[in-house]
Amino acid sequence: MAKQANRYLEVDPWKVIELGFHQERNQVSESIFSLANEFMGVRGYLEEGTDCSSLQGCYYNGIYEWGKENNPPYKGIVKRSHYLVNGLNWLATKIKIDGKVLDISKSEIQDFKRELDLKDGSLSRNFTLINEKGKVKFEFLRFLSMTNVHNSFQRIKISSDYQPNLEITLALDFNNKHWGEPGKWQIEKKDKLLIVGKTKTTGQYLSGAMKVETPDSLLFETFEEEKAIGLSFNFNLENEITIDRFVSIYVDKVGDKKDEIIFNTSKNLQEVDDFDKSLLENCNYWTDFWKHNDIEIEGDPENQQGIRFCIFQLQQTYHGFDPLNNIGAKGLTGEAYSGHAFWDTETFCLPYYLYTNLTVAKDLLLYRYHTLPQAKARALMLDCVGACYPIATLNGHEACALWQHASLQLQPSTGVAYGIYHYYQVSKDFKFLVDYGLEMLLEISKFLLSRGQWNQDKSYFGYYAVMGPDEFQMMVNHNAYTNFMARKTFLFTLEVLEKAKLSSNKSYLEVLQKTDFQKEIIEEIRTAAKMMYIPYDPKTELFEQHQGYFNLPHQEITSIPLADFPLYNNWSYDRIYRNDMIKQPDVLMFLFLYNQDFPLSVKKANYQFYEPRCIHESSLSPSIHSILANEIGKRKEALSFFGFATRLDLDDYNRNTNEGLHLTSIAAAWMNIVYGFGGLRSDGDILVMNPSIPSIWMKYSFKINYLGNNIKVTVTQNQVKIESNNSSPVAIKIWNKDIILVDQYILEM
Amino acid sequence: MAKQANRYLEVDPWKVIELGFHQERNQVSESIFSLANEFMGVRGYLEEGTDCSSLQGCYYNGIYEWGKENNPPYKGIVKRSHYLVNGLNWLATKIKIDGKVLDISKSEIQDFKRELDLKDGSLSRNFTLINEKGKVKFEFLRFLSMTNVHNSFQRIKISSDYQPNLEITLALDFNNKHWGEPGKWQIEKKDKLLIVGKTKTTGQYLSGAMKVETPDSLLFETFEEEKAIGLSFNFNLENEITIDRFVSIYVDKVGDKKDEIIFNTSKNLQEVDDFDKSLLENCNYWTDFWKHNDIEIEGDPENQQGIRFCIFQLQQTYHGFDPLNNIGAKGLTGEAYSGHAFWDTETFCLPYYLYTNLTVAKDLLLYRYHTLPQAKARALMLDCVGACYPIATLNGHEACALWQHASLQLQPSTGVAYGIYHYYQVSKDFKFLVDYGLEMLLEISKFLLSRGQWNQDKSYFGYYAVMGPDEFQMMVNHNAYTNFMARKTFLFTLEVLEKAKLSSNKSYLEVLQKTDFQKEIIEEIRTAAKMMYIPYDPKTELFEQHQGYFNLPHQEITSIPLADFPLYNNWSYDRIYRNDMIKQPDVLMFLFLYNQDFPLSVKKANYQFYEPRCIHESSLSPSIHSILANEIGKRKEALSFFGFATRLDLDDYNRNTNEGLHLTSIAAAWMNIVYGFGGLRSDGDILVMNPSIPSIWMKYSFKINYLGNNIKVTVTQNQVKIESNNSSPVAIKIWNKDIILVDQYILEM
Repeated sequence: MAKQANRYLEVDPWKVIELGFHQERNQVSESIFSLANEFMGVRGYLEEGTDCSSLQGCYYNGIYEWGKENNPPYKGIVKRSHYLVNGLNWLATKIKIDGKVLDISKSEIQDFKRELDLKDGSLSRNFTLINEKGKVKFEFLRFLSMTNVHNSFQRIKISSDYQPNLEITLALDFNNKHWGEPGKWQIEKKDKLLIVGKTKTTGQYLSGAMKVETPDSLLFETFEEEKAIGLSFNFNLENEITIDRFVSIYVDKVGDKKDEIIFNTSKNLQEVDDFDKSLLENCNYWTDFWKHNDIEIEGDPENQQGIRFCIFQLQQTYHGFDPLNNIGAKGLTGEAYSGHAFWDTETFCLPYYLYTNLTVAKDLLLYRYHTLPQAKARALMLDCVGACYPIATLNGHEACALWQHASLQLQPSTGVAYGIYHYYQVSKDFKFLVDYGLEMLLEISKFLLSRGQWNQDKSYFGYYAVMGPDEFQMMVNHNAYTNFMARKTFLFTLEVLEKAKLSSNKSYLEVLQKTDFQKEIIEEIRTAAKMMYIPYDPKTELFEQHQGYFNLPHQEITSIPLADFPLYNNWSYDRIYRNDMIKQPDVLMFLFLYNQDFPLSVKKANYQFYEPRCIHESSLSPSIHSILANEIGKRKEALSFFGFATRLDLDDYNRNTNEGLHLTSIAAAWMNIVYGFGGLRSDGDILVMNPSIPSIWMKYSFKINYLGNNIKVTVTQNQVKIESNNSSPVAIKIWNKDIILVDQYILEM
Repeated sequence: MAKQANRYLEVDPWKVIELGFHQERNQVSESIFSLANEFMGVRGYLEEGTDCSSLQGCYYNGIYEWGKENNPPYKGIVKRSHYLVNGLNWLATKIKIDGKVLDISKSEIQDFKRELDLKDGSLSRNFTLINEKGKVKFEFLRFLSMTNVHNSFQRIKISSDYQPNLEITLALDFNNKHWGEPGKWQIEKKDKLLIVGKTKTTGQYLSGAMKVETPDSLLFETFEEEKAIGLSFNFNLENEITIDRFVSIYVDKVGDKKDEIIFNTSKNLQEVDDFDKSLLENCNYWTDFWKHNDIEIEGDPENQQGIRFCIFQLQQTYHGFDPLNNIGAKGLTGEAYSGHAFWDTETFCLPYYLYTNLTVAKDLLLYRYHTLPQAKARALMLDCVGACYPIATLNGHEACALWQHASLQLQPSTGVAYGIYHYYQVSKDFKFLVDYGLEMLLEISKFLLSRGQWNQDKSYFGYYAVMGPDEFQMMVNHNAYTNFMARKTFLFTLEVLEKAKLSSNKSYLEVLQKTDFQKEIIEEIRTAAKMMYIPYDPKTELFEQHQGYFNLPHQEITSIPLADFPLYNNWSYDRIYRNDMIKQPDVLMFLFLYNQDFPLSVKKANYQFYEPRCIHESSLSPSIHSILANEIGKRKEALSFFGFATRLDLDDYNRNTNEGLHLTSIAAAWMNIVYGFGGLRSDGDILVMNPSIPSIWMKYSFKINYLGNNIKVTVTQNQVKIESNNSSPVAIKIWNKDIILVDQYILEM
């Protein structure tokens, strides 16, 4: 696998900086300089507009449209998809200087600098325009409040060495295009500086209002257009001017609270009036955040910047503001993948939250609990019972129109079960398990039982016609991952059932009744788990990715010309599926998830077998390989895979950052450090750590919250130091040694 | 398998008769009463129109539209399909009686009779309308000329017991809907009673003109509408009137001969003027046809009618008028399957032509030769070389938008190779083999070589990710049919190469050069054929339908509720593919095609294994099973399967005859008698016959033309009589006995 960096940004420990306007990469920059606060996200576009390639994207979590309703030829194929819709452009700005529209792609400018500050979450952009009369300096600043997510802020500061005439228009604009097509927003209300739009197919409301702070002498006029409202200034600039815009936005996801959100929008706007104070609040939020969650790397500035960028983006995209939100593959930074959340959430993102904020981790699982009805409906569509979680969704309904993915991939359902298991392992939150987890587990197990089948002579159970995590083996029987994860789901369900029964928890009986979970089903699940077919050869210690995989035609990966990548674009669809090449970890994936179930030799054997067959066409692939490479002692390989984990987007390794950030890969980058170099393992009753350090690093540290303790792990070339600042004793295992951590533990290496 | 007849038509040896108007089955009747002459087809609709369910379909062979161009997500998926388009309604008629529009679905009528006469190819429809003033009797008659396919005829005869006022409009109308949507025809010319339309996306022309013959006293007016022209009468009827309409139609498939076809349309129309004479010509055509091709069955009037209906429909749909035509799955009788031809042509239809008219059989293969460029382009789309024939097409381009069928089914290509082989076996036409066959064989073999793969340790060759004839096993490895047919294709290609080389035929070298067929490829083909994996167990004598099939979960077919059929409508898509149930013969299919390659015991073993696993959801399935059941001595089962072969559409067994006739199943019905009961086998150097007779029949006979000899086979309960009326000696094998047939051979049984 040869992935190459395409770097153009400056390396800095706490900032992302673009020096000079990289016009041809403007859409990449827009993605990287995205801001979000979970409630909403805004790409780092030039708010004054430009003719060069740009996606002016403003996305509001949970505000979406239904796609066109299809009449699919077969049962179980999704009838209509849905997508996160581009919404109110709250930054819409037009500037004319001496009558000429400002567009930096067509102007002479100097000292261009775009800068994302990871310490306060602000995005600034400065440049100086040069025209025949002189110079005009612009300083733009924007941020989204992390503490009151309805507030967003824009500052425009202009100065000049002459007295240019300036016409400035600031609007709230519903004309943003989606997928290049005019949007469908219907305008419900326009009242001076407030505007309310309604989504066409879902009937959701979005209400936005704004006010500006300018020098008293500045006069403005308000205006209305079909889908926008705003105000405009026309003045001759003397020295310099600062215009602060305050925007308040509320949404009504259900569509029955229009008046309420309009009222809130106005009220909220009245209460905000100090730009600098709000920025300071944001800065305080991020200061506190970094205090508990920073990862420091000494001796590797690129990865230092990269990992902080990843953590920043993940945190601003999702931090438990609303348990009905989830984490889209692209977060709130673009339109690719339609804003959908995948099985990535439980598998790749959850660990970050498990160790930074358990409440938020629980929220992610509650999202699945709230969408249980949709998952149950989906199971019925597939002629099954129980709950089948969607491969791609915003609102809980399956949104993937590619039937082979939607119907054949069972990992969203086993992923939710794994998430519940993993959350419980880390939190020991038995109440959640009984109140919410058990119901989901029972429904998922019912689904898995009904979707599974016995082989011809009924000697084993498993899954036919499935696609495992490796999407290059499209329709196979007995995919090891699927069978293994289903067995684990069954066993955990039985374990929780037993525990709940023993605890005499009242909810237990209610759940059994609610899910109509009969005794016979318990027996069937027990038998299915016992007889589950896991293709494994004890001689070679290899799991076979699926029945027959070992005898597939061999594809020598190194012989594929670089120009053929990505294969999906260059190979005929069926050709991809006709050999032993894999796209991403499949066997290695469950060796990672249930890591402590397997001896090192098994991990070694399977890593050595499968890695050379993997082309890592999924952005989630390298981190998992890096973590396992670390574990089996392939340190160099581990570092090499880690190379693009933190900087996948900053250096645009996959050449598609223009479409948005790889939010779930970002989460994998965090895992790559904590699980990879830190050697953390949480798939057991006790926390395990096997820290190591790449030879090129001087020191690194990470922080986790575990059972209420803030733990900091610092690793140098000679020493591992584990500090707990809560001083309550916690049992951990470090390099196979059981210790009770009270305040500090030091291990010399 | 439980299929039930839904009979409502009268049984008659030479006619199809509907007594009384079956309004609720009008669309079924429209299909059954279809007329065609290969150039065009017209459904048996009520030309005067009706508000009840109806598809007014007039289809012109090779006149089609492109579908919407899609942007498929992956390479190799068809970008745009194409479909046979509903064209000029040359029968358009409106009738008002005393100011009231005639619509028999809303009127009181008696003595309704719709009748298709298989002896002259005419469709008549009579009924008497009863209103408050009296009775008006209508007699409609229509036919399409088989000798001058541009001519079509309509007669309307009206009489009454009072003097009704009649307004009659006869139009040539381009307003026919397609798939329920308004058509796209653009009108290019309207000149009195001539109209020219142009297809929107393909730029083809269709020119139609008409004239009428009426009593001299009758005055008419011509009229023009946006997409129609015509004439109208308004008169008070005295006694009775006969109106004859003559229509002349030409098409320009390429779109560069508009003026020429307009000229021809007019000229042709001038030359026709005698309705009865033309009908007599048609009658002569069919008389001669039946003389050489009739199948008689004594003692089974239902099947007697059924088989004649089948032969009639097949013959009128395709008889070699234009080598650029082919045989759509629904012929020219409806819009389902978009008029596309499938691999059915070579596999199911070709035998009928091989034994009735070799020139026509050759035409079908020339169609594939003419579309070789499209097949080569398709192979490239699939990252292969050579020629990949489409699974569904009108114009040679792959038209199937379901990628799994278009990309995974290789049987169209092996089917063409089989067709060439089969044609040569019967015709001994070596010139065709070298001039056309070889080039196709070389290109098909190149494709099959590039699409095939070696297993992991390169011990065998075969096909991965394919769908064999049985479409219920969607994506499998080493489908026995595919591997077997590919091996046969390779071997036959090598054999023809060798023969052509030995014959020192000049074309041979030209073809080698044209196809860039290197020596190494010959070696690769030889090796691939030798090492082809054919899953077979000598102990059980069973072929395994594909690698792993024997270990699939078992689906007990008898346990599926009747309401679940057809499964495609009632089972979730993936569920169909997850067991050992099959839709249609797959292993049995190649046991049929290369019948003499296999001992009887193998046929028995595989029939007994696969038949109980087959749900016959393809209309092509029962006949193949009937033929093999006959061969292995399961006579009752053979007759039972035959039961709906001839009457599939007449009795609407599949409840979808409303969409059009099953034209290729109709061909299978012919095979069912000739190959099934007649026991004919032509997959060897010598013609084989093993005739038997169902116990309920008194006698049956069929006629074939073989090596220039007209041979009639008559079978009674005691005797087989084979007559050759050409008296040139021909070697055949009958019940394992080699004989030289001169004029007559009788075998007592």
